[in-house]
Amino acid sequence: MVILGGGFGGLTVAKALAKAPVQITLLDRRNHHLFQPLLYQVATAALNPGDIAYPIRAVVKAQANVRVLLAEARAIDPATRRVVLDDGELAYDYLIVATGATHSYFGHDAWAPLAPGLKSVEDALEIRRRVFLAYEAAERESDPGAQRAWLTFVVVGAGATGVELAGALGEIGLHTLARDFRRIDPTQVRVLLVEGRDRVLGGYPPKLSAAAQRSLEKRQVEVRCGARVTAVDGDGVELTVGDRTERVAARTVLWAAGVEGSPLARSLGVPLDGAGRVVVEPDLSIPGHPEVFVVGDLAACTCDGKPVPGVCQGAMQGGAHAARSIEADLAGKARGPFRYRDRGSMATIGRTSAVVQIGRAQHHGFFAWLFWWVLHIFYVIGFRNRLAVILSWAWSWLTFQRGVRLITGPVGALPPVRDIGADGAPLLPPAARTVAVDREPA
Amino acid sequence: MVILGGGFGGLTVAKALAKAPVQITLLDRRNHHLFQPLLYQVATAALNPGDIAYPIRAVVKAQANVRVLLAEARAIDPATRRVVLDDGELAYDYLIVATGATHSYFGHDAWAPLAPGLKSVEDALEIRRRVFLAYEAAERESDPGAQRAWLTFVVVGAGATGVELAGALGEIGLHTLARDFRRIDPTQVRVLLVEGRDRVLGGYPPKLSAAAQRSLEKRQVEVRCGARVTAVDGDGVELTVGDRTERVAARTVLWAAGVEGSPLARSLGVPLDGAGRVVVEPDLSIPGHPEVFVVGDLAACTCDGKPVPGVCQGAMQGGAHAARSIEADLAGKARGPFRYRDRGSMATIGRTSAVVQIGRAQHHGFFAWLFWWVLHIFYVIGFRNRLAVILSWAWSWLTFQRGVRLITGPVGALPPVRDIGADGAPLLPPAARTVAVDREPA
Repeated sequence: MVILGGGFGGLTVAKALAKAPVQITLLDRRNHHLFQPLLYQVATAALNPGDIAYPIRAVVKAQANVRVLLAEARAIDPATRRVVLDDGELAYDYLIVATGATHSYFGHDAWAPLAPGLKSVEDALEIRRRVFLAYEAAERESDPGAQRAWLTFVVVGAGATGVELAGALGEIGLHTLARDFRRIDPTQVRVLLVEGRDRVLGGYPPKLSAAAQRSLEKRQVEVRCGARVTAVDGDGVELTVGDRTERVAARTVLWAAGVEGSPLARSLGVPLDGAGRVVVEPDLSIPGHPEVFVVGDLAACTCDGKPVPGVCQGAMQGGAHAARSIEADLAGKARGPFRYRDRGSMATIGRTSAVVQIGRAQHHGFFAWLFWWVLHIFYVIGFRNRLAVILSWAWSWLTFQRGVRLITGPVGALPPVRDIGADGAPLLPPAARTVAVDREPA
Repeated sequence: MVILGGGFGGLTVAKALAKAPVQITLLDRRNHHLFQPLLYQVATAALNPGDIAYPIRAVVKAQANVRVLLAEARAIDPATRRVVLDDGELAYDYLIVATGATHSYFGHDAWAPLAPGLKSVEDALEIRRRVFLAYEAAERESDPGAQRAWLTFVVVGAGATGVELAGALGEIGLHTLARDFRRIDPTQVRVLLVEGRDRVLGGYPPKLSAAAQRSLEKRQVEVRCGARVTAVDGDGVELTVGDRTERVAARTVLWAAGVEGSPLARSLGVPLDGAGRVVVEPDLSIPGHPEVFVVGDLAACTCDGKPVPGVCQGAMQGGAHAARSIEADLAGKARGPFRYRDRGSMATIGRTSAVVQIGRAQHHGFFAWLFWWVLHIFYVIGFRNRLAVILSWAWSWLTFQRGVRLITGPVGALPPVRDIGADGAPLLPPAARTVAVDREPA
């Protein structure tokens, strides 16, 4: 059998079938499994990529019936039971499609390079590069308006990723970089969180949305609900609220809105929902092909009339169900339907704040944050990573610092250096102002 | 005053002048200081980039007389006392040039993309990408000769960097990846260390060179001394020993040979040595310009008739001397000459082996390695990084694993997948061979 994707869904299937009489080829276009819930911490320099990514081969190395292949699937042909790769084909008897989903620019694909999203390690490093380069540019800039555009960060979409990104960006301005620069006033840093719906964390109870918004506002995040982004260019965004349009000058725009299923789904030849996800049968197989399962973010499925959310636990529970169905087939038993059990959801908004919902229980504030912290540590794959993550966080938390602020890759255009010096208007109070002079007194 | 370069030399000058009545502009084209002696550990997936790199701004944030500028110097004009940048100019009264040196392709610059060197974080990530992609390609390849070329790693230059890289590459083949792949036989991994001189670690006493070579050979590294690389292409290298020429098929070639001063030196208009380094006065200033100092790898200087080596301690001692000279000027006192004090050198060759030379004392083996380890931990900048490095190493050491094996960036061309499957000749013993079949028995 073939598994496409080494995320939470695909890995769960592979591990659940460790003792089953099947030979598994696990295919991923990356060599690492990614603990995506913490990816925003890489983007905001609190964690190293290596802290939350782990080689897929190492995860399954002791499992003799799994072969890992670094390759990208281009299409699936259910009629002939083959997966088409860039450079070859794989035959399957069972197929698990777990290639996930990405954010959606709602038809405006030209915005992608202007407003990067956060799905891969490369995305996170690109966001980290842009955020910290913006501060470097602001330090060089002497025109107050232009400096303010460098210090304005727009996050589009207030789901968990958007809220966590915005909270971290606010804290970077307030705490992390406060003493690092000579010409940046931390109170000038502006983080805008734009959401089309009427509140942040729309999937949570309204009480927790309100608590999250208060936490964000404490971190100098301006929350703009009911606002749509109607234009993005290199200089900022256009926001539309009702029939009113506003232009925000911002040099850094990050995208955390929408859902779009992996394009691979289109080749299956079965109905997709509006977001390009596969509408699966109750057992997570696709119509007419009981040997093909779709698990994780790419599956559009409901349980008790409610949609199963695109989160880790959905993917893991779906993967476990697909594995059980295959084992039932092998044992000549009937498959059961997939039942999703909501174990709760949580999102963090910074150093000491989180919102947690488990069943009917709703919590926010410091203890919610502590709970979030322990649970995420527990789930990060691999002993080593767990320790490294604990230490990185402990350090970040105790010192307000973010250690992984490397800017790598191209630097690009910064304001010219002639803007700095005796002629550039110093922006800081007199005590700090002296450093803008490039002469020594002696 | 202006300092060009935030490496060991430049940072030492800035910190030594913390209380001096000077205003310092510290310029670097990167936003981070790099602990270069451990860069090979990033290239070989034992450490994260963030473990050995630290934001320059954070290092000097408490020092009010330092302003940090992310910029690249293009030229220096000592006559008008100006530094020319891409996008502006900086005037100076004192100038410290600490832009370092890189490896040298000895005129064959076309080899650079084929055989990357190891100087920056980007270099290390590129080497990591190539090394671990080579294993992925080997896993796909069914032709034994082609597979062997993917599993052959050539390291050119057996100074400290080359020896440390080669030792780590040998251990990756023997230990780290031994169980991760299904079609790679670890004994097929071949690491070739090519050195033009007659022994490895030419700067060390012959006894330690011999010990290092024995350690390398235990890690399946083939040491080729007295050999020159006379051609490099995408398929391998040509080695010339005396008048005999040999072709080695290798898909991964890494460069750790030669020294070439930063090109900025040429604009100073003073004599350079054969490697493009600035021949400095006894006080490390340049001829005719006592206000310009060159410190670190870019300076060609001698002490007691012996050349000062291009290592951290040379840069740090040189930086301290330049700072003392400036303070002497300000106090109206005479400058003294730079005196280099050799505090010893050391290189590590893997999990349990190192060579250490301190004065007349020479050590090798496990205790030398322990000493190396403690000293490097001690010197890595920043408390956080120190802890992260200890943990990463402890984990790598205890488990023979390397956790940071992410392949990021472009994947490029791998052998086609049709090479794998029932028709591809399995390379492993029968126990493992079953996984090459893509059908499940049930």
